[in-house]
Amino acid sequence: MTTPTSEMEASKTVDFYFDFSSTNSYFAAFLLPEICARHNALVNWLPLHLASLFRGTGFEVMAMTPRKARYLWRDHQRYSEFTGLPFKRPAHFPIKTSAALRSVLTVARLAAGKSHADSTSEGKAASKPLSASAVASFAQEVFRAYWVFDEDISDLNVIGAVARKLDMDAHALVKLSEAATARSELRAITDDAIGRGVFGAPTFFVGDEMFWGKDRLDFVERWLARGIPSSS
Amino acid sequence: MTTPTSEMEASKTVDFYFDFSSTNSYFAAFLLPEICARHNALVNWLPLHLASLFRGTGFEVMAMTPRKARYLWRDHQRYSEFTGLPFKRPAHFPIKTSAALRSVLTVARLAAGKSHADSTSEGKAASKPLSASAVASFAQEVFRAYWVFDEDISDLNVIGAVARKLDMDAHALVKLSEAATARSELRAITDDAIGRGVFGAPTFFVGDEMFWGKDRLDFVERWLARGIPSSS
Repeated sequence: MTTPTSEMEASKTVDFYFDFSSTNSYFAAFLLPEICARHNALVNWLPLHLASLFRGTGFEVMAMTPRKARYLWRDHQRYSEFTGLPFKRPAHFPIKTSAALRSVLTVARLAAGKSHADSTSEGKAASKPLSASAVASFAQEVFRAYWVFDEDISDLNVIGAVARKLDMDAHALVKLSEAATARSELRAITDDAIGRGVFGAPTFFVGDEMFWGKDRLDFVERWLARGIPSSS
Repeated sequence: MTTPTSEMEASKTVDFYFDFSSTNSYFAAFLLPEICARHNALVNWLPLHLASLFRGTGFEVMAMTPRKARYLWRDHQRYSEFTGLPFKRPAHFPIKTSAALRSVLTVARLAAGKSHADSTSEGKAASKPLSASAVASFAQEVFRAYWVFDEDISDLNVIGAVARKLDMDAHALVKLSEAATARSELRAITDDAIGRGVFGAPTFFVGDEMFWGKDRLDFVERWLARGIPSSS
Protein backbone atom coordinates (compact mmCIF):
# COMPACT_ATOMS: atom_id res chain seq x y z
CA MET A 1 0.00 0.00 0.00
CA THR A 2 1.06 3.57 -0.49
CA THR A 3 2.35 5.07 2.70
CA PRO A 4 1.39 8.64 3.47
CA THR A 5 4.07 11.26 3.14
CA SER A 6 5.66 12.53 6.32
CA GLU A 7 4.17 15.32 8.35
CA MET A 8 6.95 17.63 7.25
CA GLU A 9 6.03 17.33 3.57
CA ALA A 10 2.28 17.11 3.75
CA SER A 11 0.29 20.29 3.50
CA LYS A 12 -3.15 18.84 4.17
CA THR A 13 -4.70 16.30 6.49
CA VAL A 14 -7.85 14.24 6.15
CA ASP A 15 -9.41 13.27 9.47
CA PHE A 16 -10.59 9.69 9.03
CA TYR A 17 -13.10 8.42 11.59
CA PHE A 18 -13.48 4.65 11.33
CA ASP A 19 -14.72 1.63 13.23
CA PHE A 20 -13.65 -1.93 12.49
CA SER A 21 -17.28 -3.06 12.51
CA SER A 22 -18.00 -0.86 9.49
CA THR A 23 -17.58 -2.57 6.12
CA ASN A 24 -17.33 0.74 4.37
CA SER A 25 -14.58 1.81 6.79
CA TYR A 26 -12.65 -1.29 5.69
CA PHE A 27 -12.74 -0.23 2.06
CA ALA A 28 -11.97 3.39 2.95
CA ALA A 29 -8.96 2.33 5.04
CA PHE A 30 -7.25 1.17 1.87
CA LEU A 31 -8.64 3.65 -0.65
CA LEU A 32 -8.21 6.88 1.33
CA PRO A 33 -4.40 6.55 1.73
CA GLU A 34 -4.11 6.19 -2.06
CA ILE A 35 -6.14 9.34 -2.58
CA CYS A 36 -4.18 11.26 0.03
CA ALA A 37 -0.87 10.14 -1.49
CA ARG A 38 -1.95 11.63 -4.83
CA HIS A 39 -2.52 14.98 -3.15
CA ASN A 40 0.40 15.03 -0.73
CA ALA A 41 -2.01 14.81 2.18
CA LEU A 42 -1.86 12.94 5.47
CA VAL A 43 -4.44 10.53 6.85
CA ASN A 44 -5.27 11.21 10.49
CA TRP A 45 -6.51 7.81 11.73
CA LEU A 46 -9.25 8.42 14.31
CA PRO A 47 -10.79 5.30 15.86
CA LEU A 48 -14.47 5.90 16.53
CA HIS A 49 -16.58 3.77 18.83
CA LEU A 50 -19.80 3.49 16.82
CA ALA A 51 -21.64 1.61 19.57
CA SER A 52 -21.15 4.66 21.84
CA LEU A 53 -22.03 7.06 19.05
CA PHE A 54 -25.31 5.26 18.32
CA ARG A 55 -26.25 4.86 21.99
CA GLY A 56 -29.34 6.85 22.84
CA THR A 57 -30.06 7.85 19.23
CA GLY A 58 -32.46 4.97 18.66
CA PHE A 59 -30.36 3.84 15.72
CA GLU A 60 -30.03 0.08 15.40
CA VAL A 61 -27.33 -1.20 13.07
CA MET A 62 -29.12 -4.45 12.39
CA ALA A 63 -32.62 -3.00 12.12
CA MET A 64 -33.36 -3.57 8.47
CA THR A 65 -35.50 -5.77 6.28
CA PRO A 66 -33.99 -9.09 5.18
CA ARG A 67 -34.05 -7.84 1.59
CA LYS A 68 -31.94 -4.83 2.50
CA ALA A 69 -29.42 -6.94 4.41
CA ARG A 70 -29.20 -9.36 1.48
CA TYR A 71 -28.61 -6.50 -0.93
CA LEU A 72 -25.90 -4.88 1.17
CA TRP A 73 -23.75 -8.03 1.21
CA ARG A 74 -24.12 -8.35 -2.54
CA ASP A 75 -23.22 -4.67 -2.88
CA HIS A 76 -20.03 -5.17 -0.82
CA GLN A 77 -19.11 -8.16 -2.97
CA ARG A 78 -19.46 -6.10 -6.16
CA TYR A 79 -17.41 -3.29 -4.63
CA SER A 80 -14.72 -5.77 -3.62
CA GLU A 81 -14.53 -7.08 -7.18
CA PHE A 82 -14.37 -3.56 -8.57
CA THR A 83 -11.64 -2.30 -6.22
CA GLY A 84 -9.70 -5.55 -6.05
CA LEU A 85 -9.85 -5.39 -2.25
CA PRO A 86 -10.59 -8.88 -0.93
CA PHE A 87 -13.74 -9.21 1.15
CA LYS A 88 -15.30 -12.06 3.03
CA ARG A 89 -18.55 -11.85 4.93
CA PRO A 90 -17.55 -12.48 8.56
CA ALA A 91 -19.21 -15.26 10.52
CA HIS A 92 -20.01 -12.85 13.35
CA PHE A 93 -21.40 -9.41 12.60
CA PRO A 94 -21.48 -6.97 14.24
CA ILE A 95 -18.83 -7.57 16.93
CA LYS A 96 -17.41 -5.61 19.82
CA THR A 97 -14.61 -3.39 18.57
CA SER A 98 -13.62 -1.18 21.50
CA ALA A 99 -10.49 -3.22 22.36
CA ALA A 100 -9.32 -3.22 18.74
CA LEU A 101 -9.96 0.51 18.47
CA ARG A 102 -7.99 1.16 21.67
CA SER A 103 -5.12 -0.90 20.28
CA VAL A 104 -4.83 1.53 17.38
CA LEU A 105 -4.51 4.38 19.86
CA THR A 106 -1.84 2.39 21.70
CA VAL A 107 0.16 1.86 18.51
CA ALA A 108 -0.01 5.59 17.94
CA ARG A 109 1.27 6.24 21.47
CA LEU A 110 4.06 3.67 21.15
CA ALA A 111 5.06 5.04 17.77
CA ALA A 112 5.17 8.52 19.26
CA GLY A 113 7.33 7.26 22.14
CA LYS A 114 4.70 7.84 24.81
CA SER A 115 4.13 5.58 27.81
CA HIS A 116 0.80 4.82 29.43
CA ALA A 117 2.00 6.71 32.53
CA ASP A 118 1.25 9.97 30.73
CA SER A 119 -1.62 12.03 31.96
CA THR A 120 -4.96 11.24 30.36
CA SER A 121 -5.02 14.79 29.04
CA GLU A 122 -2.87 13.29 26.28
CA GLY A 123 -6.18 12.23 24.76
CA LYS A 124 -6.31 15.70 23.29
CA ALA A 125 -3.36 14.80 21.08
CA ALA A 126 -5.71 12.68 18.98
CA SER A 127 -6.78 15.73 17.03
CA LYS A 128 -3.21 16.02 15.71
CA PRO A 129 -1.98 13.58 13.03
CA LEU A 130 -0.77 10.33 14.56
CA SER A 131 2.51 8.79 13.51
CA ALA A 132 1.19 7.76 10.15
CA SER A 133 2.94 4.69 8.80
CA ALA A 134 2.82 2.44 11.91
CA VAL A 135 -0.77 3.35 12.66
CA ALA A 136 -1.84 2.91 9.06
CA SER A 137 -0.19 -0.51 8.72
CA PHE A 138 -1.61 -1.70 12.00
CA ALA A 139 -5.15 -0.44 11.41
CA GLN A 140 -5.19 -1.90 7.90
CA GLU A 141 -3.99 -5.25 9.25
CA VAL A 142 -6.75 -5.32 11.88
CA PHE A 143 -9.29 -4.51 9.16
CA ARG A 144 -7.92 -7.40 7.10
CA ALA A 145 -8.06 -9.75 10.08
CA TYR A 146 -11.80 -9.17 10.34
CA TRP A 147 -12.98 -8.51 6.76
CA VAL A 148 -10.67 -10.86 4.87
CA PHE A 149 -9.61 -13.58 7.33
CA ASP A 150 -12.77 -13.63 9.47
CA GLU A 151 -10.83 -13.48 12.74
CA ASP A 152 -12.39 -12.48 16.05
CA ILE A 153 -10.84 -9.05 16.55
CA SER A 154 -12.81 -8.55 19.77
CA ASP A 155 -10.19 -10.92 21.26
CA LEU A 156 -7.02 -9.11 22.34
CA ASN A 157 -5.01 -12.27 21.57
CA VAL A 158 -5.95 -11.80 17.94
CA ILE A 159 -4.90 -8.15 18.15
CA GLY A 160 -1.61 -9.30 19.72
CA ALA A 161 -1.05 -11.65 16.79
CA VAL A 162 -1.54 -8.77 14.36
CA ALA A 163 1.04 -6.76 16.31
CA ARG A 164 3.56 -9.63 16.16
CA LYS A 165 2.98 -9.97 12.42
CA LEU A 166 4.11 -6.35 12.12
CA ASP A 167 7.08 -6.83 14.50
CA MET A 168 5.45 -4.77 17.20
CA ASP A 169 5.62 -5.46 20.94
CA ALA A 170 2.42 -7.49 21.33
CA HIS A 171 2.66 -7.77 25.11
CA ALA A 172 3.02 -4.03 25.68
CA LEU A 173 0.35 -3.31 23.10
CA VAL A 174 -2.26 -5.55 24.71
CA LYS A 175 -1.47 -4.28 28.21
CA LEU A 176 -1.61 -0.61 27.24
CA SER A 177 -4.79 -1.11 25.24
CA GLU A 178 -6.57 -2.18 28.43
CA ALA A 179 -5.35 0.82 30.42
CA ALA A 180 -7.44 3.79 31.46
CA THR A 181 -5.56 6.15 29.18
CA ALA A 182 -6.59 4.24 26.06
CA ARG A 183 -10.18 4.04 27.28
CA SER A 184 -10.44 7.75 27.97
CA GLU A 185 -8.75 8.60 24.69
CA LEU A 186 -11.23 6.53 22.68
CA ARG A 187 -14.07 8.19 24.57
CA ALA A 188 -12.58 11.64 23.91
CA ILE A 189 -12.24 11.02 20.17
CA THR A 190 -15.79 9.67 19.97
CA ASP A 191 -17.20 12.61 21.94
CA ASP A 192 -15.23 15.02 19.79
CA ALA A 193 -16.61 13.37 16.66
CA ILE A 194 -20.17 13.77 17.93
CA GLY A 195 -19.42 17.41 18.62
CA ARG A 196 -18.27 17.84 15.02
CA GLY A 197 -21.50 16.34 13.68
CA VAL A 198 -20.35 12.79 12.97
CA PHE A 199 -23.21 10.24 12.94
CA GLY A 200 -21.64 7.19 11.28
CA ALA A 201 -18.50 5.73 9.75
CA PRO A 202 -16.48 6.17 7.74
CA THR A 203 -16.50 9.94 8.05
CA PHE A 204 -13.87 12.23 6.55
CA PHE A 205 -13.05 15.86 7.18
CA VAL A 206 -11.14 18.03 4.76
CA GLY A 207 -10.81 21.20 6.76
CA ASP A 208 -14.30 21.82 8.13
CA GLU A 209 -16.03 19.97 5.32
CA MET A 210 -17.49 16.65 6.40
CA PHE A 211 -18.07 13.66 4.13
CA TRP A 212 -19.88 10.48 5.16
CA GLY A 213 -19.36 7.11 3.56
CA LYS A 214 -16.89 5.54 1.16
CA ASP A 215 -19.18 6.71 -1.63
CA ARG A 216 -17.97 10.24 -0.95
CA LEU A 217 -14.27 9.48 -1.44
CA ASP A 218 -14.57 11.08 -4.87
CA PHE A 219 -15.72 14.28 -3.18
CA VAL A 220 -12.90 14.02 -0.64
CA GLU A 221 -10.50 13.90 -3.55
CA ARG A 222 -12.17 16.88 -5.24
CA TRP A 223 -11.87 18.87 -2.01
CA LEU A 224 -8.20 17.97 -1.67
CA ALA A 225 -7.60 18.98 -5.28
CA ARG A 226 -9.20 22.38 -4.83
CA GLY A 227 -7.61 23.09 -1.47
CA ILE A 228 -9.35 23.54 1.84
CA PRO A 229 -12.24 25.96 1.63
CA SER A 230 -13.35 28.02 4.57
CA SER A 231 -16.23 26.57 6.54
CA SER A 232 -19.62 27.02 4.95
CA MET B 1 -32.02 16.49 -21.73
CA THR B 2 -31.08 13.47 -23.72
CA THR B 3 -34.14 11.48 -24.72
CA PRO B 4 -33.91 7.70 -24.60
CA THR B 5 -33.70 5.90 -27.88
CA SER B 6 -36.85 4.19 -29.14
CA GLU B 7 -37.81 0.70 -28.09
CA MET B 8 -36.97 -0.59 -31.56
CA GLU B 9 -33.33 0.42 -31.32
CA ALA B 10 -32.58 -0.26 -27.67
CA SER B 11 -31.17 -3.61 -26.72
CA LYS B 12 -31.22 -3.13 -22.95
CA THR B 13 -33.56 -1.70 -20.39
CA VAL B 14 -32.89 -0.32 -16.93
CA ASP B 15 -35.84 -0.63 -14.57
CA PHE B 16 -35.90 2.61 -12.59
CA TYR B 17 -37.95 2.59 -9.38
CA PHE B 18 -38.42 6.11 -8.07
CA ASP B 19 -40.54 8.17 -5.72
CA PHE B 20 -40.86 11.94 -5.93
CA SER B 21 -40.21 12.24 -2.19
CA SER B 22 -36.71 10.85 -2.68
CA THR B 23 -33.99 13.45 -3.26
CA ASN B 24 -31.71 10.84 -4.72
CA SER B 25 -34.45 9.78 -7.13
CA TYR B 26 -34.57 13.40 -8.34
CA PHE B 27 -30.89 13.35 -9.22
CA ALA B 28 -31.15 9.88 -10.75
CA ALA B 29 -34.12 10.94 -12.91
CA PHE B 30 -31.80 13.25 -14.82
CA LEU B 31 -28.54 11.29 -14.66
CA LEU B 32 -29.83 7.83 -15.56
CA PRO B 33 -31.24 8.83 -18.98
CA GLU B 34 -27.81 10.26 -19.88
CA ILE B 35 -26.13 6.99 -18.92
CA CYS B 36 -28.68 4.91 -20.78
CA ALA B 37 -28.32 7.06 -23.89
CA ARG B 38 -24.58 6.34 -23.91
CA HIS B 39 -25.31 2.59 -23.94
CA ASN B 40 -28.31 2.52 -26.25
CA ALA B 41 -30.48 1.44 -23.33
CA LEU B 42 -34.03 2.34 -22.36
CA VAL B 43 -35.21 3.70 -19.03
CA ASN B 44 -38.29 1.91 -17.73
CA TRP B 45 -39.88 4.51 -15.41
CA LEU B 46 -41.49 2.67 -12.49
CA PRO B 47 -43.24 4.86 -9.91
CA LEU B 48 -42.80 3.33 -6.46
CA HIS B 49 -44.90 4.28 -3.45
CA LEU B 50 -42.26 4.40 -0.74
CA ALA B 51 -44.77 5.03 2.04
CA SER B 52 -46.39 1.67 1.21
CA LEU B 53 -43.02 -0.02 0.85
CA PHE B 54 -41.90 1.18 4.29
CA ARG B 55 -45.22 0.34 5.98
CA GLY B 56 -44.80 -2.39 8.53
CA THR B 57 -41.00 -2.50 8.26
CA GLY B 58 -40.46 -0.15 11.18
CA PHE B 59 -38.46 2.15 8.93
CA GLU B 60 -39.05 5.85 9.57
CA VAL B 61 -37.80 8.25 6.91
CA MET B 62 -37.41 11.10 9.37
CA ALA B 63 -35.93 9.06 12.22
CA MET B 64 -32.42 10.43 12.36
CA THR B 65 -30.27 12.63 14.53
CA PRO B 66 -30.32 16.37 13.79
CA ARG B 67 -26.64 16.12 12.82
CA LYS B 68 -27.40 13.50 10.18
CA ALA B 69 -30.30 15.52 8.77
CA ARG B 70 -28.09 18.62 8.64
CA TYR B 71 -25.36 16.69 6.85
CA LEU B 72 -27.69 15.19 4.26
CA TRP B 73 -28.97 18.58 3.09
CA ARG B 74 -25.38 19.80 2.78
CA ASP B 75 -24.51 16.63 0.88
CA HIS B 76 -27.36 17.22 -1.57
CA GLN B 77 -26.20 20.80 -2.06
CA ARG B 78 -22.66 19.64 -2.91
CA TYR B 79 -24.04 17.02 -5.29
CA SER B 80 -26.19 19.65 -6.97
CA GLU B 81 -23.16 21.88 -7.50
CA PHE B 82 -21.14 18.97 -8.86
CA THR B 83 -23.78 17.74 -11.30
CA GLY B 84 -25.13 21.15 -12.23
CA LEU B 85 -28.65 19.96 -11.41
CA PRO B 86 -30.45 22.72 -9.52
CA PHE B 87 -31.69 21.81 -6.06
CA LYS B 88 -33.70 23.65 -3.47
CA ARG B 89 -34.61 22.24 -0.11
CA PRO B 90 -38.41 22.09 -0.17
CA ALA B 91 -40.44 23.82 2.52
CA HIS B 92 -42.40 20.64 3.16
CA PHE B 93 -40.61 17.30 3.41
CA PRO B 94 -41.62 14.56 3.15
CA ILE B 95 -44.95 14.95 1.34
CA LYS B 96 -47.62 12.63 0.01
CA THR B 97 -46.68 11.49 -3.46
CA SER B 98 -49.22 8.83 -4.43
CA ALA B 99 -51.26 11.17 -6.66
CA ALA B 100 -48.13 12.40 -8.45
CA LEU B 101 -46.93 8.81 -8.92
CA ARG B 102 -50.31 7.78 -10.33
CA SER B 103 -50.16 10.69 -12.75
CA VAL B 104 -46.97 9.23 -14.24
CA LEU B 105 -48.79 5.96 -14.83
CA THR B 106 -51.61 7.89 -16.44
CA VAL B 107 -49.23 9.67 -18.81
CA ALA B 108 -47.86 6.27 -19.75
CA ARG B 109 -51.37 4.99 -20.44
CA LEU B 110 -52.34 8.06 -22.46
CA ALA B 111 -49.10 7.89 -24.43
CA ALA B 112 -49.79 4.23 -25.14
CA GLY B 113 -53.33 5.10 -26.31
CA LYS B 114 -55.06 3.26 -23.46
CA SER B 115 -58.21 4.44 -21.71
CA HIS B 116 -59.03 3.99 -18.07
CA ALA B 117 -61.85 1.64 -19.09
CA ASP B 118 -59.26 -1.07 -19.63
CA SER B 119 -59.21 -3.95 -17.23
CA THR B 120 -57.07 -3.43 -14.17
CA SER B 121 -55.03 -6.43 -15.27
CA GLU B 122 -53.29 -3.82 -17.45
CA GLY B 123 -51.26 -3.04 -14.36
CA LYS B 124 -49.06 -5.92 -15.42
CA ALA B 125 -47.96 -3.87 -18.41
CA ALA B 126 -45.80 -1.79 -16.06
CA SER B 127 -43.07 -4.37 -16.20
CA LYS B 128 -42.66 -3.55 -19.91
CA PRO B 129 -40.97 -0.30 -20.98
CA LEU B 130 -43.42 2.60 -20.93
CA SER B 131 -43.62 5.01 -23.84
CA ALA B 132 -40.33 6.61 -22.98
CA SER B 133 -40.18 10.23 -24.06
CA ALA B 134 -43.55 11.45 -22.75
CA VAL B 135 -43.16 9.64 -19.46
CA ALA B 136 -39.57 10.81 -19.00
CA SER B 137 -40.39 14.44 -19.73
CA PHE B 138 -43.40 14.39 -17.44
CA ALA B 139 -41.68 12.62 -14.54
CA GLN B 140 -38.67 14.95 -14.79
CA GLU B 141 -40.96 17.98 -14.78
CA VAL B 142 -42.76 16.76 -11.65
CA PHE B 143 -39.37 16.19 -9.98
CA ARG B 144 -38.39 19.76 -10.90
CA ALA B 145 -41.68 21.11 -9.57
CA TYR B 146 -40.84 19.72 -6.14
CA TRP B 147 -37.03 19.80 -5.89
CA VAL B 148 -36.34 23.01 -7.82
CA PHE B 149 -39.51 25.12 -7.62
CA ASP B 150 -40.75 23.93 -4.20
CA GLU B 151 -44.28 23.31 -5.47
CA ASP B 152 -46.82 21.17 -3.63
CA ILE B 153 -46.93 18.14 -5.90
CA SER B 154 -49.36 16.38 -3.56
CA ASP B 155 -51.95 18.75 -5.09
CA LEU B 156 -53.37 17.43 -8.38
CA ASN B 157 -53.83 21.02 -9.56
CA VAL B 158 -50.05 21.36 -9.51
CA ILE B 159 -49.75 18.11 -11.44
CA GLY B 160 -52.31 19.45 -13.93
CA ALA B 161 -50.18 22.57 -14.39
CA VAL B 162 -47.15 20.40 -15.16
CA ALA B 163 -49.21 18.54 -17.77
CA ARG B 164 -50.33 21.80 -19.39
CA LYS B 165 -46.73 23.02 -19.50
CA LEU B 166 -45.96 19.92 -21.58
CA ASP B 167 -49.06 20.36 -23.77
CA MET B 168 -50.76 17.35 -22.28
CA ASP B 169 -54.47 17.07 -21.53
CA ALA B 170 -54.45 18.16 -17.89
CA HIS B 171 -58.15 17.47 -17.33
CA ALA B 172 -57.96 13.87 -18.55
CA LEU B 173 -54.72 13.32 -16.71
CA VAL B 174 -56.07 14.45 -13.34
CA LYS B 175 -59.29 12.49 -13.76
CA LEU B 176 -57.56 9.27 -14.81
CA SER B 177 -54.99 9.61 -12.04
CA GLU B 178 -57.77 9.38 -9.46
CA ALA B 179 -59.31 6.29 -11.03
CA ALA B 180 -59.13 2.78 -9.65
CA THR B 181 -56.94 1.58 -12.52
CA ALA B 182 -54.16 3.98 -11.64
CA ARG B 183 -54.42 3.10 -7.95
CA SER B 184 -54.22 -0.63 -8.55
CA GLU B 185 -51.39 -0.20 -11.01
CA LEU B 186 -49.28 1.77 -8.51
CA ARG B 187 -50.00 -0.90 -5.90
CA ALA B 188 -49.01 -3.65 -8.35
CA ILE B 189 -45.71 -1.99 -9.23
CA THR B 190 -44.90 -1.42 -5.57
CA ASP B 191 -45.78 -5.00 -4.64
CA ASP B 192 -43.74 -6.28 -7.56
CA ALA B 193 -40.79 -4.17 -6.41
CA ILE B 194 -41.01 -5.65 -2.90
CA GLY B 195 -41.05 -9.10 -4.45
CA ARG B 196 -37.87 -8.26 -6.35
CA GLY B 197 -36.11 -7.19 -3.15
CA VAL B 198 -36.50 -3.41 -3.43
CA PHE B 199 -36.29 -1.61 -0.07
CA GLY B 200 -35.76 2.03 -1.05
CA ALA B 201 -35.41 4.47 -3.92
CA PRO B 202 -33.94 5.02 -6.33
CA THR B 203 -33.43 1.39 -7.26
CA PHE B 204 -32.20 0.21 -10.64
CA PHE B 205 -32.23 -3.20 -12.27
CA VAL B 206 -29.95 -4.20 -15.12
CA GLY B 207 -31.24 -7.67 -15.88
CA ASP B 208 -31.52 -9.34 -12.49
CA GLU B 209 -28.81 -7.20 -10.91
CA MET B 210 -30.17 -4.68 -8.44
CA PHE B 211 -28.54 -1.37 -7.52
CA TRP B 212 -29.74 0.95 -4.78
CA GLY B 213 -29.07 4.67 -4.68
CA LYS B 214 -27.77 7.30 -7.04
CA ASP B 215 -24.30 6.46 -5.73
CA ARG B 216 -24.49 3.21 -7.70
CA LEU B 217 -25.12 4.86 -11.06
CA ASP B 218 -21.47 4.20 -11.87
CA PHE B 219 -22.09 0.49 -11.32
CA VAL B 220 -25.27 0.66 -13.43
CA GLU B 221 -23.14 2.06 -16.22
CA ARG B 222 -20.50 -0.66 -15.76
CA TRP B 223 -23.20 -3.32 -15.94
CA LEU B 224 -24.63 -1.79 -19.11
CA ALA B 225 -21.17 -1.67 -20.63
CA ARG B 226 -20.44 -5.31 -19.94
CA GLY B 227 -23.85 -6.56 -21.02
CA ILE B 228 -26.45 -8.21 -18.86
CA PRO B 229 -25.01 -11.03 -16.79
CA SER B 230 -27.06 -13.99 -15.72
CA SER B 231 -28.51 -13.77 -12.23
CA SER B 232 -26.00 -14.46 -9.46
